[in-house]
Amino acid sequence: MARPTIADIAQRAGVSTGAVSLALNGRPGVSDATRARIREVADAMNWRPHSAARALGGARADAVGLVVARPARTIGVEPFFGQLTAGLQAGLSRNSVALHLMVVEDTAAEIEVYRRWVSERRVDGVVVVDLQVRDPRIGALEELAVPAVVLGGRGRRGGPSRLSRVWADDREAMLSLVDYLAALGHRRIAHLAGLPAFQHTQRRMRALRDSAKRLGLIGAVSVPTDFSDAQGAAATRTLLSRPERPTAIIYDSDVMAVAGLGVAAEMGVQVPRELSVVSFDDSVLTRIVHPSVTALSRDTFALGEQVARVLLDAVNDPDVVRELRTATPRLTVRESTAPPLGSGH
Amino acid sequence: MARPTIADIAQRAGVSTGAVSLALNGRPGVSDATRARIREVADAMNWRPHSAARALGGARADAVGLVVARPARTIGVEPFFGQLTAGLQAGLSRNSVALHLMVVEDTAAEIEVYRRWVSERRVDGVVVVDLQVRDPRIGALEELAVPAVVLGGRGRRGGPSRLSRVWADDREAMLSLVDYLAALGHRRIAHLAGLPAFQHTQRRMRALRDSAKRLGLIGAVSVPTDFSDAQGAAATRTLLSRPERPTAIIYDSDVMAVAGLGVAAEMGVQVPRELSVVSFDDSVLTRIVHPSVTALSRDTFALGEQVARVLLDAVNDPDVVRELRTATPRLTVRESTAPPLGSGH
Repeated sequence: MARPTIADIAQRAGVSTGAVSLALNGRPGVSDATRARIREVADAMNWRPHSAARALGGARADAVGLVVARPARTIGVEPFFGQLTAGLQAGLSRNSVALHLMVVEDTAAEIEVYRRWVSERRVDGVVVVDLQVRDPRIGALEELAVPAVVLGGRGRRGGPSRLSRVWADDREAMLSLVDYLAALGHRRIAHLAGLPAFQHTQRRMRALRDSAKRLGLIGAVSVPTDFSDAQGAAATRTLLSRPERPTAIIYDSDVMAVAGLGVAAEMGVQVPRELSVVSFDDSVLTRIVHPSVTALSRDTFALGEQVARVLLDAVNDPDVVRELRTATPRLTVRESTAPPLGSGH
Repeated sequence: MARPTIADIAQRAGVSTGAVSLALNGRPGVSDATRARIREVADAMNWRPHSAARALGGARADAVGLVVARPARTIGVEPFFGQLTAGLQAGLSRNSVALHLMVVEDTAAEIEVYRRWVSERRVDGVVVVDLQVRDPRIGALEELAVPAVVLGGRGRRGGPSRLSRVWADDREAMLSLVDYLAALGHRRIAHLAGLPAFQHTQRRMRALRDSAKRLGLIGAVSVPTDFSDAQGAAATRTLLSRPERPTAIIYDSDVMAVAGLGVAAEMGVQVPRELSVVSFDDSVLTRIVHPSVTALSRDTFALGEQVARVLLDAVNDPDVVRELRTATPRLTVRESTAPPLGSGH
């Protein structure tokens, strides 16, 4: 017989799955009699908890892990990441759960940290960020059987995963952005993308290509970068030095967009008269610069809180695998976008 | 006899304090023979390790704690805090130590978390930020005998503390700032301060008062705020609405300075012609706005790394109490400061 699920136990015991979860995790909320019956049924079905931590019979770590494989100096700079972890901390702290943070060199080191944390019971679950194309962390975490939430990952087509997912529709967001610029009259649209190894970068690049085909934009192009303001500035300089320069640039991050604004000023290219600038991330940066930057807005802090909630659900009941689609980021139009020169608008 | 220190043991055993620390903490770097002799001497002197964690005979947690008693939403906004924790993480991660983070409501809840973490051996040490006037956390941590580093705290005059400290000279920084503005010809200088409960706020306010007296500035005034851009903007509006408005404003944070710039633009007050703006914190914000903001600069990421190093030293040898004075922030002059109108400069 396959490993019984909480649903199997609930059915056999004639109670809700919530009651089974409370009973088997030693949480209050069910009567002693019900708890005893549920445990009996679970034992009879040879039920064993999912997580390595609880398989070892230990108490909770009361912490969830977040490992970041990025250069540490960039972590404090990006408003998106700051807001996300702040929301995560808020959601966890309300439940007296700490966030266990580590910065590593690369994905291999990240997987090593997961193994160590799980075997030493340092964490009850983990949050996975910066999802890559064919990400080796997914298989490793499924093998470790530790509750996990993948941020930005749609479920795989190949079948259900054992990891929960929280994602927003980057494709739809990019399509709405290109539609807006095309409606203003832009034809030569450039996209300063992030790292091509990231799934969301690939999705945005594909969405731009599809849009360009549909709308007949001949000059649409995606340029990959490492997300740094330095590469954002350099790529902007290259694009604006072309004889046929773009009339609009979409930046994958607010930091790159602001760096691009600086390059436009340096080269005497007027925003928005000669160049429209759009940022895929919104933050205090895009609001306070002059001209302020049109951006896709979402509540990143609230996103962090949502991730915390999904992860705590998975920790409380390892049989729960949730896929939460968050609101698609919406366009906030500010001073940096306008019809292109000579468009007749 | 008083509790023997590592220095006492080193003297009796005829070895360095470093060797004693390695031997008693079970770290490599001393020969087996030396380790055995040191342990023998330590036992004879009835030596017991400092920290509650090790007194319980356990292994390391390989994590250090940071509890933040601020509204979670503000944590992701402030560049200073983002850079500091990024540097902290970098310094810790290099030593395979995680940062254990929690956000709480107030100082009482913060002390509760320390007690729990120490008793449950979740952390090997803690970092204390946002040092207050007569801070109750200091006594609580000394009592818990957990290795700790206090950021921003000069040693107390009353005698040596058992907690390590990392601090910069805020007073000297404020004096240099006021000297510069006075040299430009400013007499009516306002200071938008942070929370008066913080020690560094008090030191900066006192430095402004002392400067004003010395330089004969009649209109110098400090206005306390909660560090938010909202209060920074509101207080700027009040100051600029006065018949005798200040010709220069010093902001305790970059976020408030940028908010103040926005209010000046909204009220038609030209920066720097009619108003000079200075920020006590430097970051990407002050560099990218127009006009760019004159600010006190320091490498906050490096400060985080220094705090990590001092804390790891204290974890490795609980008898080590360090007081590290970091470089005084230096003035970076940008576009937001000039002599006041009609000053004859």
